[in-house]
Amino acid sequence: MSNRIRVAIAGYGNLGRGVESALAQSPDMRLVGVFSRRDPASVTLLDSSVPVHAMSSIEQYQDEVDVMILCGGSKTDLPEQGPYLAQFFNTVDSFDTHAKVPEYYAALDQSARDAGRVALLSVGWDPGLFSLNRLFGEAILPEGETYTFWGKGLSQGHSDAVRRVPGVQSGVQYTLPSEEAIARVRSGEQPELTTREKHKRECYVVLAEGADADVVRDSIVTMPDYFADFDTTVNFIDQDTFAKEHSSMPHGGFVIRSGKTGEQNTQTVEYSLALGSNPEFTASVLVAYARAVHRLARVSDIGAKTVFDIAPGLLSPKSPAQLRKELL
Amino acid sequence: MSNRIRVAIAGYGNLGRGVESALAQSPDMRLVGVFSRRDPASVTLLDSSVPVHAMSSIEQYQDEVDVMILCGGSKTDLPEQGPYLAQFFNTVDSFDTHAKVPEYYAALDQSARDAGRVALLSVGWDPGLFSLNRLFGEAILPEGETYTFWGKGLSQGHSDAVRRVPGVQSGVQYTLPSEEAIARVRSGEQPELTTREKHKRECYVVLAEGADADVVRDSIVTMPDYFADFDTTVNFIDQDTFAKEHSSMPHGGFVIRSGKTGEQNTQTVEYSLALGSNPEFTASVLVAYARAVHRLARVSDIGAKTVFDIAPGLLSPKSPAQLRKELL
Repeated sequence: MSNRIRVAIAGYGNLGRGVESALAQSPDMRLVGVFSRRDPASVTLLDSSVPVHAMSSIEQYQDEVDVMILCGGSKTDLPEQGPYLAQFFNTVDSFDTHAKVPEYYAALDQSARDAGRVALLSVGWDPGLFSLNRLFGEAILPEGETYTFWGKGLSQGHSDAVRRVPGVQSGVQYTLPSEEAIARVRSGEQPELTTREKHKRECYVVLAEGADADVVRDSIVTMPDYFADFDTTVNFIDQDTFAKEHSSMPHGGFVIRSGKTGEQNTQTVEYSLALGSNPEFTASVLVAYARAVHRLARVSDIGAKTVFDIAPGLLSPKSPAQLRKELL
Repeated sequence: MSNRIRVAIAGYGNLGRGVESALAQSPDMRLVGVFSRRDPASVTLLDSSVPVHAMSSIEQYQDEVDVMILCGGSKTDLPEQGPYLAQFFNTVDSFDTHAKVPEYYAALDQSARDAGRVALLSVGWDPGLFSLNRLFGEAILPEGETYTFWGKGLSQGHSDAVRRVPGVQSGVQYTLPSEEAIARVRSGEQPELTTREKHKRECYVVLAEGADADVVRDSIVTMPDYFADFDTTVNFIDQDTFAKEHSSMPHGGFVIRSGKTGEQNTQTVEYSLALGSNPEFTASVLVAYARAVHRLARVSDIGAKTVFDIAPGLLSPKSPAQLRKELL
């Protein structure tokens, strides 16, 4: 098994743990180490036989790792770690600050090219699989509209906003796609819809002792920017129910392309995800693309890349002939 | 506009006409000619300014065409035309005889490599976009099951079978995915389902004068191989309704991957198509991939290819930087 792809993880939170799980489902890859900024002795992996190293020692391992999967956050970790680590490793990350992609791409590309490495950015489901479906949609049906809906999914920022409301002991917010909006898009009418018209917000709240439900509800649904312009519902539950039913991290969404061909025939392409665990699914996408990164590195197809640059066959452990025979 | 991609069509039936329509929606491409085995004077294009040539003269045009889109049938046309035309042109086709893909690929690859051409086979939605989704599904969620459902769609072979039944004046058959089967798959239970359990058959029949509806229905629903093992319904309608409501060629279907990650979280990925016109949609896919073929030919990435080998960015008229900025 010594020819398995040697993968390491930089950053071990929910996403890093998901990557460890996903690698365990991939017999052609093996996890050779985890790098953390925490004290390595304090980091407990699912598989205790895998070594944990200090992030500060990472450069020393450049000959022992085929692909480094970066599991840090997009806000502060990746803009720094990405270009730095691309000097020493082939990397893949889930950078998701859409507006800063061009800048991050340029920094990664410079670093990876100078070092002769591959650096694949913005892998996951959005950006990632949803991006691919937006591209396929408009390339195949140039006369049409693309719609992206998110949810049902836990929104971290909006959950934080709910928890800041006085009287809220525990709270969580889910974004849901509007069924009415989806039905209009599926019908082929190509409506104009704002993000607000496409989504609803649903909150689950445990009240602090003595808090008034009506006051709390009102504070939430009228909160500017976060809730005021949305169709928002607030459900009050007890702490046990909260702990039992609202501790997982579901997410998902839809990319729908609605177009016309020929003499006004309606064509609809729909891609949807219903995810029991958002970080585990994102991790699974990262691991499949890590396989592609390794293959690109072996043919010296270096530099920064996105999912748009990756031939889909590179994601599969199967050979091209096997793919043609079994999946075409 | 002289730097537009010069595209030609070999074979002008429903699919060829769809390609002509799709090219009209693609400002970076232009249709430079149509080749037909019929008398060119008898072939009427949507755009009468485009020349129609005899198929027998096709070799003479090898310097005037960047990509030849092959619109013949998979049974007899493509096995012969594909390898022959790949000697002279970069080609793309919709070869869909799944079992013969390896053999056809080998013949195309030999011919295209000898001539320094690109030959992209089996492009469309199945094989094609559905194949890609089967690949993504199993690469990302290795522990899971993939389900392909077809319909609602017109089935040519089953419609022919209906029309052979004595007493049938006009008839058509649609294959429909079973809603119950889809619901079970979406639930994440990963059921074992045969093609028969996944689909229903719906027939629309105009009776010949004096024919007995019960006898005709019984002949259809008990027909071995075609209908006997399916849930089949037969609807009797008049000729006017038949002409009005059953002359288009809708199709579509679903590819669903249902998998588990981590500690048994269910993850579901669903891709679905609802097509007002099957040949026009297939044609739209061919045209987007013709753009990719032209780009591969320009960098001499020659030989036979499938959708698995094509980086998605090559399908779009947009530049890589524009794609990263707008769609990632």
